[in-house]
Amino acid sequence: MHNYSHCLSLVEKEINLLVETKKEPNELYLPAQYILSLGGKRIRPAMVLMACNVFSDTLEEAISAAVAMEVFHNFTLVHDDIMDNAPIRRNQPTIHEKWDNNVAILSGDAMQIMAYQLLCKSKPSLLKPLLDVFNTTAMEVCEGQQYDMNFVNRTNVSLNEYLRMIELKTSVLLAGSLKIGAICGGAPDEEAHKLYEFGRNLGIAFQIQDDYLDVYSDQEVFGKATGGDITENKKTYLLIKALELAKNENAEILKKAIRGQIADTDIKIEMVRMVYDELNINKIAKDAILQYSDKAFECLASVTIAPERLQPLKELALKLMDRVK
Amino acid sequence: MHNYSHCLSLVEKEINLLVETKKEPNELYLPAQYILSLGGKRIRPAMVLMACNVFSDTLEEAISAAVAMEVFHNFTLVHDDIMDNAPIRRNQPTIHEKWDNNVAILSGDAMQIMAYQLLCKSKPSLLKPLLDVFNTTAMEVCEGQQYDMNFVNRTNVSLNEYLRMIELKTSVLLAGSLKIGAICGGAPDEEAHKLYEFGRNLGIAFQIQDDYLDVYSDQEVFGKATGGDITENKKTYLLIKALELAKNENAEILKKAIRGQIADTDIKIEMVRMVYDELNINKIAKDAILQYSDKAFECLASVTIAPERLQPLKELALKLMDRVK
Repeated sequence: MHNYSHCLSLVEKEINLLVETKKEPNELYLPAQYILSLGGKRIRPAMVLMACNVFSDTLEEAISAAVAMEVFHNFTLVHDDIMDNAPIRRNQPTIHEKWDNNVAILSGDAMQIMAYQLLCKSKPSLLKPLLDVFNTTAMEVCEGQQYDMNFVNRTNVSLNEYLRMIELKTSVLLAGSLKIGAICGGAPDEEAHKLYEFGRNLGIAFQIQDDYLDVYSDQEVFGKATGGDITENKKTYLLIKALELAKNENAEILKKAIRGQIADTDIKIEMVRMVYDELNINKIAKDAILQYSDKAFECLASVTIAPERLQPLKELALKLMDRVK
Repeated sequence: MHNYSHCLSLVEKEINLLVETKKEPNELYLPAQYILSLGGKRIRPAMVLMACNVFSDTLEEAISAAVAMEVFHNFTLVHDDIMDNAPIRRNQPTIHEKWDNNVAILSGDAMQIMAYQLLCKSKPSLLKPLLDVFNTTAMEVCEGQQYDMNFVNRTNVSLNEYLRMIELKTSVLLAGSLKIGAICGGAPDEEAHKLYEFGRNLGIAFQIQDDYLDVYSDQEVFGKATGGDITENKKTYLLIKALELAKNENAEILKKAIRGQIADTDIKIEMVRMVYDELNINKIAKDAILQYSDKAFECLASVTIAPERLQPLKELALKLMDRVK
């Protein structure tokens, strides 16, 4: 069985080929090559290959689809960064900063088409099922981004709405990558669906973990928390849960924080964290992460195959989920 | 055989279904439905159906692909309008004006996926050839838009570069629509390619005609010329040809105009037109239009099929090319 790091090296090799191919006009292709060359964990394409490997001993059938998922993911980053006005991505200037908005819009559009071109290199007999998963997933990612933008101006986002948003914006692309890999490996529909559900639950757990680490990671083993989500009033699992539970003074503090009535950033972070602590949000969030990751591992274990074939995916998932102790 | 207006009504019916389907989130789907409901000539989807009809008596096989081409075309308009900062499209506010840039970026992205979803409703056995044409065409349209943007800041655009740009930005989508229709109708590769070449040449003729009418239509039967291209220093067939031919004083006038050294817009238009007249640009442009449209009709006539099956496409092309007398 091929583990994450082996799959990663296959993916990097293919991406390098894309990045090194000279194509005109430069302004269209260079930005795409730039963002693809900035690295990242390449989780999605690795998952395509690993899911294929669950059902097939050869990975060739899945490599183009794997790179397609990474190119699509990077396309969403390029356009999201314009929309979020983000200057930095992977410690480098974003495309709209390095070039301009128009270049970022158009090269993003080209990357979306590039993703389809790569996917279409798959075996013709697999094209229809692969495209069905890809189209649905891609559209859901757009829906998730739209909900995320809508939430910025809302103060009454429910936990269910939030969970649905992160499912669309983050999870379905992991889930879709796994399903696409499974299809490339010749998996029966039912087994491909189990991997999809593994990815969907893992993605939700991973996103809640991200919310958690933004507030709590300095108290733990892993790096330093920034409190950036609190500063930006981001609707996170923690904030939404706290708004749901807070009463009297705690509710007042949260409202003040969201309304921007606590001018000093450090004080704001400190006060919101104190409310979180009183409401036991730390434990509630940890429980939610555990609940979704447990569910993910259950789905993975339910795949009808020799357990050792699932080992690399299990290891990758454990690696992704090991940051909350 | 089904003529343009019959095909148009089929297309409108399908687009209405898309436009009337309620989908969440609103901010993602309403803008797409808005732009699709603003009308337009629907040339591309009509061409898909008419090209199908050349080889097949039923059009059902082509209807989803036809709408896919229209949705893709409208996606390019949405993103081009952001890039060009255009406030009006089809006499109505553009999406980024009516909503905002982020909504226009994301709903455009969704429309691109929607185009693929529609295309994927085609017969599975046709998917691979249809997607090959679609992917290539879509990427070329992006390349054309990038070249067009690059030309804004250049003063030395050659005629060949210009022709390649309009081929990519405008012609290949007409050509691709015809080829996709032909494939849906079961055409042999060679015949599908002849329709592609018909569309490619027709598109170039049509774009040069557009350049021509911006300057000369008030002297002719058709409406009033705006001179908008001259005002904006747009690199058109006429301007590039004039820059190539102009000497001494005429060359000076063109340079001054492009450098923005003729402040009064009406005087600028008048002076540039006088240079065009002296250089006989009117006739040169007319000849080019005729050359490309003749070539288009030749390609159409070369299709190996009973000539009456080609009649509706011939009529549509004549209709599109009848504005220069």
